[in-house]
Amino acid sequence: MKAHVYVTLKRTVLDAQGQTIADALRRMRYQGIEDVRQGKYFVLSIDSQASESEARSEVERIAREVLVNPVIEEYSFHLEA
Amino acid sequence: MKAHVYVTLKRTVLDAQGQTIADALRRMRYQGIEDVRQGKYFVLSIDSQASESEARSEVERIAREVLVNPVIEEYSFHLEA
Repeated sequence: MKAHVYVTLKRTVLDAQGQTIADALRRMRYQGIEDVRQGKYFVLSIDSQASESEARSEVERIAREVLVNPVIEEYSFHLEA
Repeated sequence: MKAHVYVTLKRTVLDAQGQTIADALRRMRYQGIEDVRQGKYFVLSIDSQASESEARSEVERIAREVLVNPVIEEYSFHLEA
């Protein structure tokens, strides 16, 4: 089973890296880009013996405790069989 | 419209950062994690006047030319209305 975890800065937190990319794209004349936010993406491969609910709670725990800084970041994830 | 772009190292490229996270999780006694791959995640906000096919080709161009190093990385994306 694979878990895809997406970590982004909260909307209220300035994303300097994303803004830099957006500015660069505008300077390079790419059309119609209003904003860019950059985040992190993790793919966790999980032991196939784990049930879906076990995997879900383990991934949530790992995200909350290790991958995400809850002060400035938020996350979402989905499981793939 | 928003485009979600996921950039990962190709399978054949060593992902040292992902391996470090996997090793740390094992040391911290998280159960059943076999492997971790780390990638980048971008959310592009696109001018709502663009059609879906225009947005799609623009995002593909930006990914290929700016966000992705095609020698070592691959990407996928999806659009969200």
